[in-house]
Amino acid sequence: MKVEGVAQRPIRLHHDGWSVDVIDQTRLPHRLEIVTLRTLDHAAHAIESMQVRGAPLIGATAAYGMALAMRADASDLAMGIAADRLLSTRPTAVNLRWAVEEMLGALFTVRPNERVEAAYRRAGEICEEDVAICQAIGAHGLTLIEQAAARKPGEAVNILTHCNAGWLACVDWGTATAPIYMAHDAGIPVHVWVDETRPRNQGASLTAWELGQHGVPHTLISDNSGGHLMQRGLVDLCLVGTDRTTATGDVANKIGTYLKALAAHDNRVPFYVALPSTTIDWTLDDGFAIPIEQRAGEELTQLTGRTKWGETVTISLAPKGTPARNDAFDVTPARLVTGLITERGIAKASKEGLKALFPEQR
Amino acid sequence: MKVEGVAQRPIRLHHDGWSVDVIDQTRLPHRLEIVTLRTLDHAAHAIESMQVRGAPLIGATAAYGMALAMRADASDLAMGIAADRLLSTRPTAVNLRWAVEEMLGALFTVRPNERVEAAYRRAGEICEEDVAICQAIGAHGLTLIEQAAARKPGEAVNILTHCNAGWLACVDWGTATAPIYMAHDAGIPVHVWVDETRPRNQGASLTAWELGQHGVPHTLISDNSGGHLMQRGLVDLCLVGTDRTTATGDVANKIGTYLKALAAHDNRVPFYVALPSTTIDWTLDDGFAIPIEQRAGEELTQLTGRTKWGETVTISLAPKGTPARNDAFDVTPARLVTGLITERGIAKASKEGLKALFPEQR
Repeated sequence: MKVEGVAQRPIRLHHDGWSVDVIDQTRLPHRLEIVTLRTLDHAAHAIESMQVRGAPLIGATAAYGMALAMRADASDLAMGIAADRLLSTRPTAVNLRWAVEEMLGALFTVRPNERVEAAYRRAGEICEEDVAICQAIGAHGLTLIEQAAARKPGEAVNILTHCNAGWLACVDWGTATAPIYMAHDAGIPVHVWVDETRPRNQGASLTAWELGQHGVPHTLISDNSGGHLMQRGLVDLCLVGTDRTTATGDVANKIGTYLKALAAHDNRVPFYVALPSTTIDWTLDDGFAIPIEQRAGEELTQLTGRTKWGETVTISLAPKGTPARNDAFDVTPARLVTGLITERGIAKASKEGLKALFPEQR
Repeated sequence: MKVEGVAQRPIRLHHDGWSVDVIDQTRLPHRLEIVTLRTLDHAAHAIESMQVRGAPLIGATAAYGMALAMRADASDLAMGIAADRLLSTRPTAVNLRWAVEEMLGALFTVRPNERVEAAYRRAGEICEEDVAICQAIGAHGLTLIEQAAARKPGEAVNILTHCNAGWLACVDWGTATAPIYMAHDAGIPVHVWVDETRPRNQGASLTAWELGQHGVPHTLISDNSGGHLMQRGLVDLCLVGTDRTTATGDVANKIGTYLKALAAHDNRVPFYVALPSTTIDWTLDDGFAIPIEQRAGEELTQLTGRTKWGETVTISLAPKGTPARNDAFDVTPARLVTGLITERGIAKASKEGLKALFPEQR
């Protein structure tokens, strides 16, 4: 999507044709800074430090991480080490595993001297596939916004989102934002309630930035506000992403998603989750079996931002030594999910619903 | 309660016997700074700027504000102007109105030359009554913690709270924290999950500070985390305060309370609201009729804190010009409230429940 009028992607090949440029998302919204990844370690660090984040983008970065590893050493052993290193970066997103396994599949079948080329080819395909998937999600989700718009002609459709499931989390379009961008581009009036998304503020710093750059009307709210707005009839639709979805439709997404799903259910607001099918973990039937990453407490007790003089500083928000617990995700049970917007269409959040769209999965 | 081992209150008479010392709560947790209020305007400003906050403390400060006004001019006209000025400071907390009306009642019945003395007497009584009320709330709420402790011998009772309904919000003890302090002082192991409470971070900066100073074990969490912790069985009891409660048991409290109540209900965690009966608005049957204060969007987009060099700085969290909406309170319907802990005992959150405890109210 657009940044200052120019199409941007959060990941692309550097002009040397082999290193990988990513937007350093820890610098947004204050600075658009590109980091060039030249080694496996660079790629792993980018994922761990959340310079790149969002399930699809983590997958794309891991794919290129495998390609960078092959450039250094294309042996079977190096391939295994690289896969292990990347898989250990973050535990919750399932398409990290999917992307690494895709790469291993593409690489094991060719000889070492062909692996570099094969790796870049497959990584590039994974990125383009993601773009196509997000476009398809957007087209399916657009129908929901069109229906909501038809119910209130002349008024904006109010959509609440949590965290960043935008193009910054993917390769383009985003998952939850794809229908929003398509509606906006089609002239349907939309307005987005952007949850701040503590503790890392992906809503305030990434989603608000994305939407603002593309010109989509939006308002920042605290994570505490969504229920209140729904009670007052100010939300027509909730649209969020997911880091891992079970075969039964339970959804692991950014911590706090569950609370919004409860509020949507209590106020009869449709609650949809947008996802590429690569985020479905077909091996799991129970969302509570998904490992939940615990991150450092400092993400909560300290905050880095920019003063009006342009200086980047870190401030502490709590008394010195305050213990903090920082679970990165929560699980929204399928019963609270109105539907799953996938690249193949909108499924009921249930085993049957998902199977109907993905019959090839056992 | 204690600060560095010494008993403190958030409001008390200055040693000159007429001006009023309050803890400047906008400076916590980094600095314990006392502000001396010498005029009606000082008192009104302290409430508006949230140097003092919390329904009971707002009431106490308004009462002393009336006394300060009487010192300058004890005429009927000045009394009316002072009352209007104080009532306009914040719209949601009902015991602001209660305290001002108490003061008017005490003052109208005496001659102007006796009003200064009468005002200080009644304001002092309001403070001492609040302490007694909080003690009674603590004693009633303590039984709930004792029951929870009996169900898990040897383990800490995990209590989740939102915002600050502690002694900093009252004159001593706090409302939601009174049972916690009493349990802790009685040797019952308690552990408090402290919600950060965006956007003003009263949990991170006030509740964490209070509990830490008094030695009560606690852990800071994001507002997004409570539902997840309840799903995992890590919360035994929710205890929050309220700014206004209807005669039917609907509760207006800090924005985000409703989301926690939904999660508690979904996970069968008891959800109790602690309140002095002065926060009950007997004229209202519907929580959605309570006016909800909208505060400046900058409270959300900017944040002031302290760097590790001790410097206080303001940083921005969102792209420049991002619109923000900042509703300060939400309404939790009575159906989600397990019980109301008042100074007279624990009531069902219903018209009948409240009437049984307060039969003198029509």
